[in-house]
Amino acid sequence: MILADKYKKVRKHTEDICRPLQVEDYVVQPVADVSPPKWHIGHTTWFFETFILKPNVPSYIEFDPQYNFVFNSYYETIGSRVIRTDRGNLSRPGVADIYRYREYVDKYMVDFISTAPSPVIADLIILGLNHEEQHQELLLTDIKYILGNNPLFPAYDLHHKENITTEAREGVITIPEGLHTIGYAGNEFCFDNELGRHQVYLSQYKIAKGLVTNKEYLDFINDNGYTDFRHWHAEGWDWVKNNQVTCPMYWHNIDGEWNQYTLRGLEPLNWNDALCHISYYEAAAYASWKGMRLPTEFEWESAAKQFAWGKRWEWTESAYLPYPGFEKAPGAIGEYNGKFMINQMVLRGASAVTPEGHSRDTYRNFFHPYLRWQYTGIRLAK
Amino acid sequence: MILADKYKKVRKHTEDICRPLQVEDYVVQPVADVSPPKWHIGHTTWFFETFILKPNVPSYIEFDPQYNFVFNSYYETIGSRVIRTDRGNLSRPGVADIYRYREYVDKYMVDFISTAPSPVIADLIILGLNHEEQHQELLLTDIKYILGNNPLFPAYDLHHKENITTEAREGVITIPEGLHTIGYAGNEFCFDNELGRHQVYLSQYKIAKGLVTNKEYLDFINDNGYTDFRHWHAEGWDWVKNNQVTCPMYWHNIDGEWNQYTLRGLEPLNWNDALCHISYYEAAAYASWKGMRLPTEFEWESAAKQFAWGKRWEWTESAYLPYPGFEKAPGAIGEYNGKFMINQMVLRGASAVTPEGHSRDTYRNFFHPYLRWQYTGIRLAK
Amino acid sequence: MILADKYKKVRKHTEDICRPLQVEDYVVQPVADVSPPKWHIGHTTWFFETFILKPNVPSYIEFDPQYNFVFNSYYETIGSRVIRTDRGNLSRPGVADIYRYREYVDKYMVDFISTAPSPVIADLIILGLNHEEQHQELLLTDIKYILGNNPLFPAYDLHHKENITTEAREGVITIPEGLHTIGYAGNEFCFDNELGRHQVYLSQYKIAKGLVTNKEYLDFINDNGYTDFRHWHAEGWDWVKNNQVTCPMYWHNIDGEWNQYTLRGLEPLNWNDALCHISYYEAAAYASWKGMRLPTEFEWESAAKQFAWGKRWEWTESAYLPYPGFEKAPGAIGEYNGKFMINQMVLRGASAVTPEGHSRDTYRNFFHPYLRWQYTGIRLAK
Amino acid sequence: MILADKYKKVRKHTEDICRPLQVEDYVVQPVADVSPPKWHIGHTTWFFETFILKPNVPSYIEFDPQYNFVFNSYYETIGSRVIRTDRGNLSRPGVADIYRYREYVDKYMVDFISTAPSPVIADLIILGLNHEEQHQELLLTDIKYILGNNPLFPAYDLHHKENITTEAREGVITIPEGLHTIGYAGNEFCFDNELGRHQVYLSQYKIAKGLVTNKEYLDFINDNGYTDFRHWHAEGWDWVKNNQVTCPMYWHNIDGEWNQYTLRGLEPLNWNDALCHISYYEAAAYASWKGMRLPTEFEWESAAKQFAWGKRWEWTESAYLPYPGFEKAPGAIGEYNGKFMINQMVLRGASAVTPEGHSRDTYRNFFHPYLRWQYTGIRLAK
Repeated sequence: MILADKYKKVRKHTEDICRPLQVEDYVVQPVADVSPPKWHIGHTTWFFETFILKPNVPSYIEFDPQYNFVFNSYYETIGSRVIRTDRGNLSRPGVADIYRYREYVDKYMVDFISTAPSPVIADLIILGLNHEEQHQELLLTDIKYILGNNPLFPAYDLHHKENITTEAREGVITIPEGLHTIGYAGNEFCFDNELGRHQVYLSQYKIAKGLVTNKEYLDFINDNGYTDFRHWHAEGWDWVKNNQVTCPMYWHNIDGEWNQYTLRGLEPLNWNDALCHISYYEAAAYASWKGMRLPTEFEWESAAKQFAWGKRWEWTESAYLPYPGFEKAPGAIGEYNGKFMINQMVLRGASAVTPEGHSRDTYRNFFHPYLRWQYTGIRLAK
Repeated sequence: MILADKYKKVRKHTEDICRPLQVEDYVVQPVADVSPPKWHIGHTTWFFETFILKPNVPSYIEFDPQYNFVFNSYYETIGSRVIRTDRGNLSRPGVADIYRYREYVDKYMVDFISTAPSPVIADLIILGLNHEEQHQELLLTDIKYILGNNPLFPAYDLHHKENITTEAREGVITIPEGLHTIGYAGNEFCFDNELGRHQVYLSQYKIAKGLVTNKEYLDFINDNGYTDFRHWHAEGWDWVKNNQVTCPMYWHNIDGEWNQYTLRGLEPLNWNDALCHISYYEAAAYASWKGMRLPTEFEWESAAKQFAWGKRWEWTESAYLPYPGFEKAPGAIGEYNGKFMINQMVLRGASAVTPEGHSRDTYRNFFHPYLRWQYTGIRLAK
Repeated sequence: MILADKYKKVRKHTEDICRPLQVEDYVVQPVADVSPPKWHIGHTTWFFETFILKPNVPSYIEFDPQYNFVFNSYYETIGSRVIRTDRGNLSRPGVADIYRYREYVDKYMVDFISTAPSPVIADLIILGLNHEEQHQELLLTDIKYILGNNPLFPAYDLHHKENITTEAREGVITIPEGLHTIGYAGNEFCFDNELGRHQVYLSQYKIAKGLVTNKEYLDFINDNGYTDFRHWHAEGWDWVKNNQVTCPMYWHNIDGEWNQYTLRGLEPLNWNDALCHISYYEAAAYASWKGMRLPTEFEWESAAKQFAWGKRWEWTESAYLPYPGFEKAPGAIGEYNGKFMINQMVLRGASAVTPEGHSRDTYRNFFHPYLRWQYTGIRLAK
Repeated sequence: MILADKYKKVRKHTEDICRPLQVEDYVVQPVADVSPPKWHIGHTTWFFETFILKPNVPSYIEFDPQYNFVFNSYYETIGSRVIRTDRGNLSRPGVADIYRYREYVDKYMVDFISTAPSPVIADLIILGLNHEEQHQELLLTDIKYILGNNPLFPAYDLHHKENITTEAREGVITIPEGLHTIGYAGNEFCFDNELGRHQVYLSQYKIAKGLVTNKEYLDFINDNGYTDFRHWHAEGWDWVKNNQVTCPMYWHNIDGEWNQYTLRGLEPLNWNDALCHISYYEAAAYASWKGMRLPTEFEWESAAKQFAWGKRWEWTESAYLPYPGFEKAPGAIGEYNGKFMINQMVLRGASAVTPEGHSRDTYRNFFHPYLRWQYTGIRLAK
């Protein structure tokens, strides 16, 4: 697809995601990790204004100098910013203003793209579009949190398909001992953390064809999985007790029946669905209870062509660390991945709310082990 | 005024206050003490639904059973509720829904009032209207906080008159030693905390005719008032250091010039205005620096007929405690005042955003000593 | 008693209190309010070194310049100091060193007193001795906390008499309406917060002859006093829930029997003893449940000659505020009382661990409403 | 060495370490990670009582049933325990009591060892001795913290040799690309986390022969290393700002001269010493500033025979995760390592306070990235 079309398509998709929202839904930030939707639509626009238009289009006039302070996420290079936990405290700029900002920047961007920018700049625009796709996924994830933690449990879209019954996928794949090549190899876009293609030596392992289902996880709950410390990491056990965790996020036991909040509202749990919205601690505890373990990210990648993935982000047993030869890009773009390589675990795959075509089998997602608002699931290994 | 007219007038005034808001402004709660405007308009409606309609109008059908959970403020008698700090995390019910709720309840209320309810119930309606007037003041106070802590400093209303230059009011009133009668005496509405009219014996004292001005307070700042521990209570001094306080709330020193956020937006400080938005700690420290003190609430009340008040809530040196013979009303209404009589200081007077006619010279307002978002000022005594 | 004898007697009493301790007991600080015993014996010595010897004895050589940093409690005038919560983190100076410091300062003090210091300085020495008596009470109170919160429940002294069965003291005293004079009137030592003798007008009131007993308080517990919000201040109710409070401090229900930790170790509760170790919140809730209230400090003082007191500090319904005409002394001594006059409640009387002769019926003790480690009890009024 | 001799030697060494302490030094816990020395000597004894004597010696009578509650560290299997942050709040059991406990358990242990216990039990005793050696290192590390954070900076032992000038060790070792075998291979004791010997494939890398020196690190400080966000992980940067970190722990700039607290007291920094007491964040930031990186634990182990180590624990770029095939032992001993395998980084080597012969080149130490009280240093790689 030519760049201008790709640009318009990605930008429009963000707006399509927001269409079912009421103005109020754009504003709130119920926990620090969840950003207000209006912040997402402003921040993705700010990315193009800051990294493409301001350095490359001399005639560009900044839409509003204050917006840099409001919509910078974490780029120290770019200057000071609203602290993350304050995003939900700002009623202004309002939703209509931010859409005007969006329209304004888009007009300049489309004009600029039509001048056939240099390959280096074109790559930066591609990065901006991949960045926006990440925020499209975050938007749906955050909207689910905002509506799913509201006592009224409002639906986002009564016809949204976020959870997909996994086909019967019994059994495991066995991968023999040997050397495997890890990391991105193609000529398309990838993130810097996928680069540094390198060899890893893996002992023989088995990896499940399918994901753990709600039914299977219920067995763990019913077998007192949440009250038996032996399955848990020490800090996972503290997390369970301090937060009084007894089931996955969005599960609600109402009068003895298990329900689940989805983007369609509250509905009975479908037992054959792939399990979702669990922390790394829960994933590891479940695997331990099962006498199994989570795969490493290398095991996952080496076997990924042999199973279907893309329904749930899958926790791995690998910490998020640089590949051999990893180097941060110079300037603000260098703050994209490297500085987060501590105390987070790698997730592989993609989820039902990841934009079509955004992920790859070399893609490295990462989150802190206690987080559950992402669409996270379990694939077992041994 | 007859009750039906009074009801309609008060209810309409709440809506008038909200007219300049954008939908987004209704939603946020930047600190725990500031409630989202949409919560105020729902909560004041819930008060009439809960305490008038549900117990007295058999044909009344609750608008939405969930709203009790959402709009109960602190009434343990009425059941569980959204925790206070979560009010700003709820995008639903939306603004339009809450106005529909308001309209629905108003219709029933107006019908019910037309049936000439008993004096006991009429008094409860009057209490509900005084309660709503308190929330009208809170609404403007909270809106000021919401907009005044936004980096864009948006105006609420370019023509709003919240700060009024005090007339030159030099000098003091001297009140001779003797007995004074304290507490409400008339036949109109008052709160239960004003009742228990009783005698207090006061030594001779002097009390200022006017409030401390911005200019006078600037002298305190320039004389290192915020860095000299000797003027401060021990916990006031901790508060100054922990919060790095150097001036009143809403003051901004921009390039050497003092500005102030008002409901009209950011504007240069008017030096002759009465000082506003200071904590009890600051009020007491200023008085100490001046070689004066704050008046007790009894001194204030005994002299109140001799000076103009109503521009700023005035911190007193009195803790909020029951008058002799104070008794809590039975049931939920008994939770209105008594349970807050600890660790708060009394403020007397009224402010420029208090609804006309709401306050009296026996009125007892109260806040924690560290709070500054209210329109609080200083009258000196000796 | 002449000053030199008084000095020696008071100083020796502090050491007598510490005699039953093991070295380890001198060191710990289990909560911020409880200071390590070795800190008390150093701090009381530092008081004489800092306020008497250094300003008045030219030949005095400071024992160790670091001790000023270690043993200053809260005097900003005197300079920086170990933060309060770190007192229990310091193993040095050790106990033997601090006793050497004590001996060193005592030698200089005794010599200095023999030179017949001026009345102003003699008054300051008297203040130092009253200060030390306050710390004698704190020492026993803190030792009780240190040992009573240890899982081994060690005794301090198997023969210590801290709780005294109250004689049967049924009935109330009725005080008629009228003017009363409040504040210290004699020629002996008193604290600055007792001065400013002044008139108060009191309505007729009744005040109990005796204190509430353990038995009476058990009725409150058994009547669900700790689970019925209606008796409690709003913040008292939060305190009960957040701290899961179900009985007074030091009460332990072991296999259905109520026991109490005393300085003699764990022993069965004596039901006729005066209740002890309750917070202001509990005192006020109990009074409310009883249909009574706590007396104000003025009511207490005006009736104090008509009942026996001195077994327990008695919570009053008065906030700790300055009397008319209160003035802080200049310099560091001015930091003794005034700067704490916010957010604390007045207690009257004395306790069984208060040194003989230390208190008076005009004495004003004060603590935050949530504190229970003091020997605090309840006298009812109406 | 035969087991009985080994047992006596290790146990005696713990006591030798404590000999220079005053009783007060045994008691305090200035931060959660630092345990009171008396807790260490009790806990190491409890280990033998709990895992050897109670299950295997029928005639053994528990010294004091309360000690299980006091000296259990983190074994959920064994039951409830004093919460970690409360260890420094307990004055009892006292030091003399704990030494009596030690003597009592030692007598039983020596008798039991003389009965030639089965290999399984002998292995458990060996584990207990290795556990005690870990606590010997912790004891010195914690004592350094206790004395080094005291404002008097007392010495532990004026002749202690904890920092050793590194020989000039310029240059790097180059290891060619290829397969390496990782994990313990011998027949002696090792921890379970070293087992699961396996192959790893490493790209060619360079690793420094020597450790970074104080002098080299000073260059980083002087080049504004602590104020330039570009070198830091995002959460490292937050850590620097929140804690106002400007130099390694125990460095003190006094009147422009750099001093360092050592177990000998405060002394001028020796610039040629290996740098010590830095967090992982600082290690990674220094490496980034230098254009280098930290080695992975596999790179370290594969090169370890080619350089001298043992002066400082060396931060690696590897997260603490299980080796292939890792299995937790059944029962309480299974809580030794596995449950900590999250959010910690691996350190390799040993330090000058590690007992002689305790470590190996396959030894895996681990700590949270923000910790600095350990003897931690930097070896660079590329």
